[in-house]
Amino acid sequence: MNTENLRELLESVCSGQTDIESATDRLATLPFIQTANARIDTHRAHRQGIPEVIYGGQKTAEQILESAHALIEAGQDVLVTRVDEDKATRVLGRLPSAEYDALAKLVWAGTSEPKILGKGTILVVSAGSADLPVASEAFQVARRFGNKVELLQDVGVAGLHRLLASLDLIRDARVLIVVAGMEGALPSVVGGLVDKPVIAVPTSVGYGASLGGISALLGMLTSCASNVTTVNIDNGFGAAHVATLINRL
Amino acid sequence: MNTENLRELLESVCSGQTDIESATDRLATLPFIQTANARIDTHRAHRQGIPEVIYGGQKTAEQILESAHALIEAGQDVLVTRVDEDKATRVLGRLPSAEYDALAKLVWAGTSEPKILGKGTILVVSAGSADLPVASEAFQVARRFGNKVELLQDVGVAGLHRLLASLDLIRDARVLIVVAGMEGALPSVVGGLVDKPVIAVPTSVGYGASLGGISALLGMLTSCASNVTTVNIDNGFGAAHVATLINRL
Amino acid sequence: MNTENLRELLESVCSGQTDIESATDRLATLPFIQTANARIDTHRAHRQGIPEVIYGGQKTAEQILESAHALIEAGQDVLVTRVDEDKATRVLGRLPSAEYDALAKLVWAGTSEPKILGKGTILVVSAGSADLPVASEAFQVARRFGNKVELLQDVGVAGLHRLLASLDLIRDARVLIVVAGMEGALPSVVGGLVDKPVIAVPTSVGYGASLGGISALLGMLTSCASNVTTVNIDNGFGAAHVATLINRL
Amino acid sequence: MNTENLRELLESVCSGQTDIESATDRLATLPFIQTANARIDTHRAHRQGIPEVIYGGQKTAEQILESAHALIEAGQDVLVTRVDEDKATRVLGRLPSAEYDALAKLVWAGTSEPKILGKGTILVVSAGSADLPVASEAFQVARRFGNKVELLQDVGVAGLHRLLASLDLIRDARVLIVVAGMEGALPSVVGGLVDKPVIAVPTSVGYGASLGGISALLGMLTSCASNVTTVNIDNGFGAAHVATLINRL
Amino acid sequence: MNTENLRELLESVCSGQTDIESATDRLATLPFIQTANARIDTHRAHRQGIPEVIYGGQKTAEQILESAHALIEAGQDVLVTRVDEDKATRVLGRLPSAEYDALAKLVWAGTSEPKILGKGTILVVSAGSADLPVASEAFQVARRFGNKVELLQDVGVAGLHRLLASLDLIRDARVLIVVAGMEGALPSVVGGLVDKPVIAVPTSVGYGASLGGISALLGMLTSCASNVTTVNIDNGFGAAHVATLINRL
Amino acid sequence: MNTENLRELLESVCSGQTDIESATDRLATLPFIQTANARIDTHRAHRQGIPEVIYGGQKTAEQILESAHALIEAGQDVLVTRVDEDKATRVLGRLPSAEYDALAKLVWAGTSEPKILGKGTILVVSAGSADLPVASEAFQVARRFGNKVELLQDVGVAGLHRLLASLDLIRDARVLIVVAGMEGALPSVVGGLVDKPVIAVPTSVGYGASLGGISALLGMLTSCASNVTTVNIDNGFGAAHVATLINRL
Amino acid sequence: MNTENLRELLESVCSGQTDIESATDRLATLPFIQTANARIDTHRAHRQGIPEVIYGGQKTAEQILESAHALIEAGQDVLVTRVDEDKATRVLGRLPSAEYDALAKLVWAGTSEPKILGKGTILVVSAGSADLPVASEAFQVARRFGNKVELLQDVGVAGLHRLLASLDLIRDARVLIVVAGMEGALPSVVGGLVDKPVIAVPTSVGYGASLGGISALLGMLTSCASNVTTVNIDNGFGAAHVATLINRL
Amino acid sequence: MNTENLRELLESVCSGQTDIESATDRLATLPFIQTANARIDTHRAHRQGIPEVIYGGQKTAEQILESAHALIEAGQDVLVTRVDEDKATRVLGRLPSAEYDALAKLVWAGTSEPKILGKGTILVVSAGSADLPVASEAFQVARRFGNKVELLQDVGVAGLHRLLASLDLIRDARVLIVVAGMEGALPSVVGGLVDKPVIAVPTSVGYGASLGGISALLGMLTSCASNVTTVNIDNGFGAAHVATLINRL
Repeated sequence: MNTENLRELLESVCSGQTDIESATDRLATLPFIQTANARIDTHRAHRQGIPEVIYGGQKTAEQILESAHALIEAGQDVLVTRVDEDKATRVLGRLPSAEYDALAKLVWAGTSEPKILGKGTILVVSAGSADLPVASEAFQVARRFGNKVELLQDVGVAGLHRLLASLDLIRDARVLIVVAGMEGALPSVVGGLVDKPVIAVPTSVGYGASLGGISALLGMLTSCASNVTTVNIDNGFGAAHVATLINRL
Repeated sequence: MNTENLRELLESVCSGQTDIESATDRLATLPFIQTANARIDTHRAHRQGIPEVIYGGQKTAEQILESAHALIEAGQDVLVTRVDEDKATRVLGRLPSAEYDALAKLVWAGTSEPKILGKGTILVVSAGSADLPVASEAFQVARRFGNKVELLQDVGVAGLHRLLASLDLIRDARVLIVVAGMEGALPSVVGGLVDKPVIAVPTSVGYGASLGGISALLGMLTSCASNVTTVNIDNGFGAAHVATLINRL
Repeated sequence: MNTENLRELLESVCSGQTDIESATDRLATLPFIQTANARIDTHRAHRQGIPEVIYGGQKTAEQILESAHALIEAGQDVLVTRVDEDKATRVLGRLPSAEYDALAKLVWAGTSEPKILGKGTILVVSAGSADLPVASEAFQVARRFGNKVELLQDVGVAGLHRLLASLDLIRDARVLIVVAGMEGALPSVVGGLVDKPVIAVPTSVGYGASLGGISALLGMLTSCASNVTTVNIDNGFGAAHVATLINRL
Repeated sequence: MNTENLRELLESVCSGQTDIESATDRLATLPFIQTANARIDTHRAHRQGIPEVIYGGQKTAEQILESAHALIEAGQDVLVTRVDEDKATRVLGRLPSAEYDALAKLVWAGTSEPKILGKGTILVVSAGSADLPVASEAFQVARRFGNKVELLQDVGVAGLHRLLASLDLIRDARVLIVVAGMEGALPSVVGGLVDKPVIAVPTSVGYGASLGGISALLGMLTSCASNVTTVNIDNGFGAAHVATLINRL
Repeated sequence: MNTENLRELLESVCSGQTDIESATDRLATLPFIQTANARIDTHRAHRQGIPEVIYGGQKTAEQILESAHALIEAGQDVLVTRVDEDKATRVLGRLPSAEYDALAKLVWAGTSEPKILGKGTILVVSAGSADLPVASEAFQVARRFGNKVELLQDVGVAGLHRLLASLDLIRDARVLIVVAGMEGALPSVVGGLVDKPVIAVPTSVGYGASLGGISALLGMLTSCASNVTTVNIDNGFGAAHVATLINRL
Repeated sequence: MNTENLRELLESVCSGQTDIESATDRLATLPFIQTANARIDTHRAHRQGIPEVIYGGQKTAEQILESAHALIEAGQDVLVTRVDEDKATRVLGRLPSAEYDALAKLVWAGTSEPKILGKGTILVVSAGSADLPVASEAFQVARRFGNKVELLQDVGVAGLHRLLASLDLIRDARVLIVVAGMEGALPSVVGGLVDKPVIAVPTSVGYGASLGGISALLGMLTSCASNVTTVNIDNGFGAAHVATLINRL
Repeated sequence: MNTENLRELLESVCSGQTDIESATDRLATLPFIQTANARIDTHRAHRQGIPEVIYGGQKTAEQILESAHALIEAGQDVLVTRVDEDKATRVLGRLPSAEYDALAKLVWAGTSEPKILGKGTILVVSAGSADLPVASEAFQVARRFGNKVELLQDVGVAGLHRLLASLDLIRDARVLIVVAGMEGALPSVVGGLVDKPVIAVPTSVGYGASLGGISALLGMLTSCASNVTTVNIDNGFGAAHVATLINRL
Repeated sequence: MNTENLRELLESVCSGQTDIESATDRLATLPFIQTANARIDTHRAHRQGIPEVIYGGQKTAEQILESAHALIEAGQDVLVTRVDEDKATRVLGRLPSAEYDALAKLVWAGTSEPKILGKGTILVVSAGSADLPVASEAFQVARRFGNKVELLQDVGVAGLHRLLASLDLIRDARVLIVVAGMEGALPSVVGGLVDKPVIAVPTSVGYGASLGGISALLGMLTSCASNVTTVNIDNGFGAAHVATLINRL
């Protein structure tokens, strides 16, 4: 609701095209759907062509379904993140049109093939095969959001030749998402090989001094490659969202 | 040095255009300058039009000057970050053509007005006036790197009307850098107002439970706005570098 | 037992109204009930009209029942917090008059409709639907303690319009409890909109750098809004207790 | 700017009393003063009779003076917190009407005796004499904000008789601010003695495992007294602000 | 093996009372029992009358039994700490003479009534009823080690009158063990009431900012009562061991 | 003030020996001295023959002198801990009878040779020569408190023969204070050699992962020797106080 | 791929022995096997005689089998670490030639008796019997990698005589791996007894302030014995790998 | 003092070659020098040809000199680490034969050119020029301890070509010391390029989330290259000591 819109509304009221009550209502009617337990933001989805996303991590199947049904009624695609297999079974039982990706832990109900809106390729690079669930979340979300996406996996820094063998793929990407656990060094190395923005995703892969991903996170935040920014531990979704916005510029 | 270049070099050797010794040399001659104490990467600067940057934080004036002179001899611009006033005096004493920005703690030796290479505006938003040094580092680096930059300052989340008064400025930016200390909530609020990438910079402004910027950092990493990525505490330079790369896409 | 009471007791002894033995006993008879495993404080409840509360979190069903029966014999209402469904089943099996709120994890045995003793409305604001269990604990405890309570939910800071749509509700409250996980920024924003005390409750909602609620807690402690105080992670009960005391002033 | 105000403005525009341009301006004209480096919020001060407060901790004398002069021109009182002696000398040199409290580290320019607006007494309780600077900040701010304030000092929990000797003073307070470093146990003990809200202020007094006040902070957050809320380490100002708001209810 | 013993052994060898082989053997025969997986120290038990203790926390039932049988064969009493109910069932199945205390999680095989060797009373004070398992471990271990022990429970600092009602009991103890979770303030208060050594045991009781007992631990380490020393979180056994050694002085 | 004393006071009032006013006064007259900034506890000193101790760490020379003069007027010895050389000069300038120990950072004003009240020897063991200031604080405080004290220094665990060479000294002590920085392993080794209480004092000696003494502290808290209890980092005073109480048993 | 190899390849192309296409291929054909989910490094194994190792900790049985089969097809031995019993059953079900060591949690498929390639003995020393699983991982990996290995267990520092009884064994080792939980002091003591490299392995054995092995880790990093280096918590495998490399020197 | 030596001593006593007194003395005469404040271990130096090392970090110039003079009298070389320029001036003032390396912060008094005892080359690799002081400490200590040492500096992972240009140097080393601050990724990359032991030294270079070197330390501990072990932050000395022991094998 910027100054320009406000001026137009005021002129419309003044000219009699809009009466005062309905103008007040319109100002108050904000773009969300009120369900019993949630205020779902429908605004961004309409404007952007990015499906509405429900964070499923600490919600019950019932909370997820309540939000999903409201979105479907509003004619929108639905993407739910962090849905484990048990919860997915319960959700799909009452939302049969939906599909579930068990590796990425995503539930999707909507258009099966998204329209490509990104201008280049997003490359998802993953350090080890244990990082694959997070890399898959990033990959699938970026794909659902309308991007051409490539995946380069198991190219940790202790075996540089595996990474350098795919140098062309790395240099062709417009945006890079680099996923790594343990010491989280891969974004620094990849960042040094490209002149593109690198979004680093630390994972909780590791043990002991990995501290559940904190070490990888700290490593990425203190990267000596200055084209690296970082998101939360295991947050493949967030990385894909930002990469999508960048890829549409 | 990708497969294509390698093939060309091999063909050139095979056809006699290049002899074996010089091919080997060429493969070994890597794009850096070896000084007494440093291997300065001149490669990226030539290719990108981004001046070479020296992190001055834990270097002596002598180390800074050694690198700066090597770059100047190579015909490059020089930007040094994190130079306090004492060190700046010693550096400028032996590098009289350089200028010093005391607020942003930057030393610059090179073209005074950079060519604009970014496609849109980078907006630097700062939460409080104590965050200004970091915001200035981001602002000046982005400017030196060839971007149109705007600064919106002192718009912390506890006085929303100050922020909302500049909504047009916020929505016109192509990339946003949001700088905040204490609880670090500003990127979440700004992130919710735009559909552009937001680079969050936590600052060490605050006391007690601020933990030297850790609380702001954690707040930004766990932001409920999924278009936010984060850099290290007080890292205005890194934010400006990534914003520049994005703004050139 | 202040100086005034002591003086009266001494005078009463001296005048012969009270004999020495019974005065000594009275001084020693302190206002608690000694059960096998607990010394339950009955003093505060009598004086305040606030039902006695049992923290059920790390107690067995047996320990809860022992304390509950002692209170009921003393003619008091009983409120037990942090009772999961299994424990609740065992407690209600032997305390059939009690009711259980599964969302708020509260067991209640007592008057069904509390007398309103608070002077205004306590507003509980919750950032996301995953924060609802903690918000419900705060809401139900405040209600049981004799307050008019309102709940405003799912109004996180990344969608400001959802919050601003309820500005009247926010400004009408006498005391506010603001519940948020992840970056915990909501109390700062709400605190900037009102001139009333805001009690911030961090929740353990989030993952990775949320550190089980520590990030939200740090964010609230370092809030740039100076009308915010904070309680422990997930401590909806404590927030409701303090809000009740303030609302009775 | 609530719905009611908006409706009135719209009616006024519609009836011709206000033209469209000025209505737009009025909506855009937000209640802050724009200086070179800050947007100072003048709104709250006008409405509340609480003087505008400048956090001086990480600002230069120049930044403090810029804000102070803007406020004085707007006819407001000025309170600056966390001003060390050197900075105070420079500020008072250019603001001769101001006074400086070296123990509380406060600069004040305004009415010397504030009008009492609080309904009861705020009691500031301090654990040890090393906590006095923080307790003084709380005391002086509460006094400047128009409260009757009492100070009870050096009553740490390892000498209970010192505390219990002042039980009447403790029980007569309407709001309590309890300041303690080291293990931070005093708010729990005081909280158990009263039925009033207790605002706990951890201090950085201590060494080793005190962790700069973190241990006291954690102790207060996990207090077994449920009428305790907590503010940031050494934040006497914040405690006084909240206590003032509560005392005016 | 001090200098004096060595001299005697040498003299005995020299005089022919002891031959060289057996002297070498005696020097090499150290006072432990070698089992398949452990070197059990039998030395201390013989000398002190303190039964040998097996830490059962991260051992299997098989490892516990192996050590227990070795001790029984050597004619010693056996005490196993941190044995949960499942493991206890398996241990008692093959050690029928043993008894199990489920609250204290102790297995005991030996003399049922220990000889009193301590000179005074050890008092175990516990803050809340959730701290009882740790307090019981301390109580039972101290009892098994031959002390007169008393238990004072549920006397947290937020209800001082419950503690002060037992002041005589507190002042009669020769050594005190004070067990508390959450903010861990009880040792400071008790420490201020007595002139005896106070051994503080933090417990993992609490949630959120309790950090699994770290907050209580930090509170105890930074206690303003200087007669307090601290042991590890939930280490009732260690407290009882030290208290026993002190009580025998 | 136990039940017995109370009964006597009541009888005395009842019999007319004591009038009501003076009985009330006596109950209210608690054993401390009220100075401008402190309530000094004179009670314990009188009863115990332990000189009153002032923690000088975060106090000004003025605060120290105020307390010291009050104590001297009350006829007591004065011990001030953590006094650096500058502060000591200012204190001794106005308290000429006092002496200063620069290594232990102690100021003492009182009887030069304390009466021996401890029953045995307290042995202070120190790991490295950098730990000497803390070991000296423990040594001198224990001496001032009336104990026979011995010091065994520079016997870190990486050179066991240095420690074992003094085994007789170690085994002759009645109470042991073991001071160590870095990994803090010495108390575990010493604890295994004796059957006496060992008080472990971690020091802030070390760098990097020493974390200012936290690593030594954690090592001592998790010691596999169960006769070890721990005090705060660098808290030589606290260790000496507890050792004194134990040595008088 | 060093300069020498490159020169030879170029000469071979130039002389016509190798054509350009195959040279390019050879440069691109890097020494790993690409499976569906992994790029397995076969290079090192061939060159070194060290079997390829799969970290099984956060992989599914299916991921483990995919890698294992690829290695077996390439004619290599397979070692999988951190395989719990359930996963082992599933792996061995489809890899019947493999053996499983339940204590060390290792799966092995390959030559049953490795050729001894190490020049001396690797000694694995373990502090307590609860550390045995980690010590066994180190022991078995070192054995599989072709070393003579000895195990000395249950020799914690609180019973020095148990350790000193095996001094000859300790002094005969060429490389030492020292495994300890809790305070992690054993490497310091062992390090002081030998002039050989000591690799310290902290374990997660302990509770409370052990912080899951962090305390042991910190203790080892800050060891006063300067011949100690450290690996991650519970990383018996890594210690054995480094010890093997050293033992082959 | 192993069993064999003991037997020989006993036989010698028995045969009359050694009398009892002198045998006892010999057993008690342990190989250290007792100065006023230290027990200096002279044993290792004699046996190994490694000069005795004094950690100068938290010692005064006086403490350093006391130890140095004792060593010189015993005919040994002296190496003092962590001596800043002020302290060095004071030490060299009274030890004129010593030399000072200001970059490595080392004082040396002894043979100027050490005899080479190591079998191969130790390579010190440093990530950035700010890491040079720590790398120099490692380099100079390794040199003083009798090794051939090479230094490869400024080869951080974000510019891989700088590192790969020196691949031959890297592969020729027998032992590698890799020094890095910030994210500490260099040891992982170097570790993947060699089959030799890599000793990782984290440095405190960096800011914000570098946490004074903790992030680099964590990154090294969780390295995906399993031939990496780690020492304390900035501990160039320790790395050189271990590398020396390995290089002599």
